[in-house]
Amino acid sequence: MTPTHFQYDLLAQCGRARAGVLHTPHGDIPTPVFAPVGTAATVKGVPPRDLQELGATLVLSNTYHLYLRPGDELVARMGGLHRFMGWDGPLLTDSGGFQVFSLPDLRTVDADGVTFRSHLDGSTHRFTPEKVISIEENLGADIIMVLDECAPPAQREYNEQAVRRTHAWAARCQQAQTRSDQALFGIVQGGVFPDLREQSARFLIDLDFPGYAIGGLAVGETKAQMHSVLELLDPILPENKPRYLMGVGTAEDFFEAVACGVDIFDCVLPTRLARHGAALTHAGRINLRNLALAEDTGPLEDGCACYACTHFTRGYIRHLMVAKEIVGLYLASIHNLHFLLDTMRQIRASIFAGTFEQLKANRLPTLMRTA
Amino acid sequence: MTPTHFQYDLLAQCGRARAGVLHTPHGDIPTPVFAPVGTAATVKGVPPRDLQELGATLVLSNTYHLYLRPGDELVARMGGLHRFMGWDGPLLTDSGGFQVFSLPDLRTVDADGVTFRSHLDGSTHRFTPEKVISIEENLGADIIMVLDECAPPAQREYNEQAVRRTHAWAARCQQAQTRSDQALFGIVQGGVFPDLREQSARFLIDLDFPGYAIGGLAVGETKAQMHSVLELLDPILPENKPRYLMGVGTAEDFFEAVACGVDIFDCVLPTRLARHGAALTHAGRINLRNLALAEDTGPLEDGCACYACTHFTRGYIRHLMVAKEIVGLYLASIHNLHFLLDTMRQIRASIFAGTFEQLKANRLPTLMRTA
Repeated sequence: MTPTHFQYDLLAQCGRARAGVLHTPHGDIPTPVFAPVGTAATVKGVPPRDLQELGATLVLSNTYHLYLRPGDELVARMGGLHRFMGWDGPLLTDSGGFQVFSLPDLRTVDADGVTFRSHLDGSTHRFTPEKVISIEENLGADIIMVLDECAPPAQREYNEQAVRRTHAWAARCQQAQTRSDQALFGIVQGGVFPDLREQSARFLIDLDFPGYAIGGLAVGETKAQMHSVLELLDPILPENKPRYLMGVGTAEDFFEAVACGVDIFDCVLPTRLARHGAALTHAGRINLRNLALAEDTGPLEDGCACYACTHFTRGYIRHLMVAKEIVGLYLASIHNLHFLLDTMRQIRASIFAGTFEQLKANRLPTLMRTA
Repeated sequence: MTPTHFQYDLLAQCGRARAGVLHTPHGDIPTPVFAPVGTAATVKGVPPRDLQELGATLVLSNTYHLYLRPGDELVARMGGLHRFMGWDGPLLTDSGGFQVFSLPDLRTVDADGVTFRSHLDGSTHRFTPEKVISIEENLGADIIMVLDECAPPAQREYNEQAVRRTHAWAARCQQAQTRSDQALFGIVQGGVFPDLREQSARFLIDLDFPGYAIGGLAVGETKAQMHSVLELLDPILPENKPRYLMGVGTAEDFFEAVACGVDIFDCVLPTRLARHGAALTHAGRINLRNLALAEDTGPLEDGCACYACTHFTRGYIRHLMVAKEIVGLYLASIHNLHFLLDTMRQIRASIFAGTFEQLKANRLPTLMRTA
């Protein structure tokens, strides 16, 4: 189905890096874009008005979690996910496949779908391609994903089988779709194997999806292996469709993957790190419980424009973290989201300016450090 | 010491209910006023900009907690409590006495002061009147409290002794004060005993404090006993000084105590109830985990102007509570604070309008219900 109100415009390139805009029924998404993750219909610790203030333009939520709680049918009766969670910008839902395949003891997979147990109460459930589309249509996100099978990246036979299933399921998802206001993305699988990846991309391109996700990465393979897959896929995937690297990641990854033509990213990292007491900065990660910060009157990061950095000191935020105060998690989450969203905005600006490679060369060396 | 930049102006009365304004170095406080409690230099779950948006004009923080962590000297080196916690409006600190006397197994009291163990690490500490003033001067709140002894309200002998100590300590606190930009309040003790309460009030009035707190209430006595004490003290306490009922409380208590001439209130209740999953409404408390709310598309309270009620449904907030999501606590905290702050604003307006008794008669009957 060709979705209405959905189109990707490629506006500029710098090397292979792409800057564009993705039009959706709930607004335009400047790309490349980082999507904060709202697992259970909420970005942990961060209310929607803060996401808006941070300049988030796309939020991801998890089909698996919402299906189990509060239930996709309930969300539909409450007016859909946008209205339910109070976010009227663009939304993306994954297929639930990643969560199901992350629970190896709790699921059995066959050609028709996957049976799994709820991590909440142990009850048994089944996802088929048709069921997943039905759930995602109940949720009503602007961008939705096909059901795919995620295999461990280096197991050849498993990946051959997973690619076959993923392809069959992708076609069934496409057939099952009834809403024309959602863009259904295919998901390229194939682990670290170039021939499988190419085969997967070409199969899905033949099905003519409005966008392509790259799955099965950032799941244990090396960075070099990830980059090889991205470099391989870049010239194969159609230029006029958005490319989404699922579950990635860090600012370092943004630079590496944008350099291979990726447009969309998502990751729980900024809010998860914040809850674990870490702040992201251009000079590496900071442990916010560090005694050395106790009387530090500087902001989390010099020059940062976020609410946390413009109003509070490292010393105060350290106090909140040590005292296990919720506002500490909130301020660190705000800062970490700002850091990634702002890094992506700088990347996009550098693509228009033709300076992406310089920005990448300047920024990459310090990002990996832990301060 | 007569504090500079501190003055109470009584502007209107309706029966014994008083409306006024309290001028402080960090701004004016319209009274009667409810102060949200920021125990550890943060109102749990609610950033300062939200407090500002909610119209909070006074925030309380706890000397006992800040002395232990992060330490009052550290707060002083960080520029004082206002700057440390990012709240530049009026602040009030208690004396730490209430916390110390709430830890009966961990403290010994003598004429000179009280020795106690930290609830954090068991280390031994000592509060004397002089030490408490030194801590409160390091913190730098606009309104500070004398060290007092809180006795169980119905024990006669204990209260006689506690009143004697409280008086001696009040005089020593007054002598110890060196900063003229903080208003030091005396604290009336005496349990439920009218003669002790009167004796305590008159002794403290002779010391001429810029304001008077009423301590030792809301600690186990009946509502009727509390009202008796307030009615007794109202004509004794000077009309041109603010009266602060410590640790109270609920919207019901506001009506009862304002009717007895009280000007200042504080309580952890709105944020604590929110963390326990309860919302305050004019029709009583709501259990936010209640299954009956799962598909409720209404706001926490009809007509409420807070961010939670203008943007989210009961059904969504119930989902967040069941899923233990931080944003659920945040939204319920915002709403509960708004409920109490707005109730107090309505009380103040009714005093000016001469309709306080009608408002009280209309509102009291439903407030006690649990929906």
